[in-house]
Order: sequence, then structure tokens, then C-alpha cells
Amino acid sequence: MPMKNKRELILNTMESFFQEGLAGTVSVSDIAKRAGIAKGGIYYYFHSKEEIMDAVVNRQYDTIIEHVKVTVTNFEGNAIEKLALLLFTYKKAYVDPSLDEYLHMPYNAALHQKSLATILTSLKPLVTTIFEQGISEGIFSTNYPAELAEILLSSFTFLHDPGIFDWTPEEMSRKMQATAEFLALTLHTPENAFQFLYKN
Amino acid sequence: MPMKNKRELILNTMESFFQEGLAGTVSVSDIAKRAGIAKGGIYYYFHSKEEIMDAVVNRQYDTIIEHVKVTVTNFEGNAIEKLALLLFTYKKAYVDPSLDEYLHMPYNAALHQKSLATILTSLKPLVTTIFEQGISEGIFSTNYPAELAEILLSSFTFLHDPGIFDWTPEEMSRKMQATAEFLALTLHTPENAFQFLYKN
Repeated sequence: MPMKNKRELILNTMESFFQEGLAGTVSVSDIAKRAGIAKGGIYYYFHSKEEIMDAVVNRQYDTIIEHVKVTVTNFEGNAIEKLALLLFTYKKAYVDPSLDEYLHMPYNAALHQKSLATILTSLKPLVTTIFEQGISEGIFSTNYPAELAEILLSSFTFLHDPGIFDWTPEEMSRKMQATAEFLALTLHTPENAFQFLYKN
Repeated sequence: MPMKNKRELILNTMESFFQEGLAGTVSVSDIAKRAGIAKGGIYYYFHSKEEIMDAVVNRQYDTIIEHVKVTVTNFEGNAIEKLALLLFTYKKAYVDPSLDEYLHMPYNAALHQKSLATILTSLKPLVTTIFEQGISEGIFSTNYPAELAEILLSSFTFLHDPGIFDWTPEEMSRKMQATAEFLALTLHTPENAFQFLYKN
């Protein structure tokens, strides 16, 4: 079996334990047994169960980011439509609840924080490109497309994260209205241009 | 000795070890010895050395937040001057480098993330009040003072944190110029109103 597949097999197996709510209790031997490989085969790729769990989380984030990128890049539409699609796709693709729970445990904060920073850094070029497209289309105007992308993503990753803050649905709804107004003013669009953020 | 003072004494002692770069290596016995109290006296207040270290960090953040609040509240000036003072005081009061280093170690990410969220939550009412003052003074206009305060603080805590991201001085300078432009546009002020963010 080629190397890459064996690593993937270990991650798939760990993911199945996550989905069954058993990630916290299984041992490396349990993982090896279910994957049908020797325990030493696991230690060739990972130092510990924690490393396997972290790799499962990172793989899921990579998949989401890749999915968002492909979906948005293949879509023909103006900058506002693309931004709407990006945020919709990102929200819908949100991580497995079983992984999300793991990520929000205090001792996984390092991984969580790194994940938020990775999402921001990975999606920033895509959001910047959308803002630049809007500028070419004559519907947006700003000198700071990349910085605006960062502030927007910093809200969506850090500020709106339910594992860090505990906002009510009313507060969240007001935040989305404020974000829509903030984008309209900074990008010089009509004020209802970003109503997709709060209207379903 | 009254209870509160003994707890403070333990924290002061731990803080001195931080400043000497010895926080990582000292034991609870070392802390007790330097504080001149029995080891049992420490365990009455804390379960472990980690708990003492976390309490030192939290105390320092509380002190900073309190200092910023008092400084800004006692200052007579318009909303823009108050905002400038707030950000200047917050930046100048930034944590002890020895604690900051501790906070940016991966296994302290939970504490770090909680600290960022605490700063944001604690300073939000103050920044909101400043925006509201600006509205009464007729120099700001926005329907979302609280949400704008959050977005601004989310940039200053999460996005600009050198332990999470690794921005160059040029990138940071551009971010401050962009923040000044975004504030001017969202608060409907003249465009140079927030130049204190990038001019020294």
C-alpha cells in the first residue's frame, strides 16, 4: 500500500471514532485494530493519538478551504454574488460537530487558534481577489482590498466563533447587519448591496 | 495576614520568577520558600503551579484593562482624542515581555485566547461609549457603535497579535492606515480624523 494511503487510512479510522463519540477513549491499539494495520505502522506516521486527532482536524480544515476555493473559482458572477457564495459555502461546510466539540475544549485551544489563523490566511487571497474583481467591475471602490478582506475574515473566524464568544441569535443578527453596513460604506456601494448577510 | 494579601503575595512571588526567566523551572516549594510561607499555604489558594501562572497573567490583564479604563474616563476630550488615548494607553501598557512569551507558547493558547476574548469584552463598553460620545458631539455618525467597537477590538486583539500572525512592520503600518480609512468611512468623519493611528 503506498505511503500516502496508509496515512489517510489512519486518519479515516480516527475520524470514524470521532463520529461515534469515541475519540476521547480509544487507544492507539484500537485505532490500529480497526484500520487493520500494525501498531508500529501508526507510529511510523504519528507520535501519539493527539497527533492523529490534530491531523484529522487539519485535514478537515484543508478540505473546507479547498472546497470553498473551488466552488467560488468555478462560479461565474459579479463580486457581490461571489462574496455571498463564499460566505454561504464556508458556513455550510463548517466542520463536523464531533470535531468542533474537540476543537473547543480548552486544551485544544492552540490547535483551534492555529486553525482560525489558517482559515484567515488561506481565504484572504480569495476574498482580496473578489474585492479586486468588484473594483474592475466598477461596483466597489477601496484602496485597501487585502486589509478589508482580513478585517472581514477576522470577524467571521474570531469574533463570530461560538466557542470563544457566546452571542445570542439577536446579537449575531445585529452583527451581520452591522457587517453589511460596514462593507457598503468601506466599498462605496449602495447600502443594501450586502443584504445577503442578514436576509435568507 | 488577611487572606487577600497572602494570595497577592504568592502572585507577586511568581511574577518575580517570571521576570527572572525562572517561571518554567521553579517548583511550588521554591515559590513557598521565596514568599516565606508554608507549601500548604499555597495549596490553600492554588491547585498547581500552572494555576498560579495563569492567575499572574489574568491579574496583569485585569490591571491593564483597569488602567486603560481609569485613564480614559478621567480624561476630558472629544471622542477622537479619547479613542487615541485609549489605543495609546493600551499599547503602552502591554504585558510584561516575560509573561507575553509564556502566553504565546502553544500549550498556553487556551489562556491566551481567553485573554484576547476578555480584553475585547472588557474594552467594548468603553469604546462603545466613546463612539456614542462622538455621535452626541456631532462628529461621528453610525447606527452600530457597539458592533463597530467589536470589529475594531477584534482587529487590535486577534488580527494584530504578533503571537498569532507574523506581520512585517510595513504590513502593520498599512493595516493601521486601512483601519483609519475604515473608521472615517463608517463613522462619517473627514478622512484624516484617525491619522493618529499611523502618524507618530
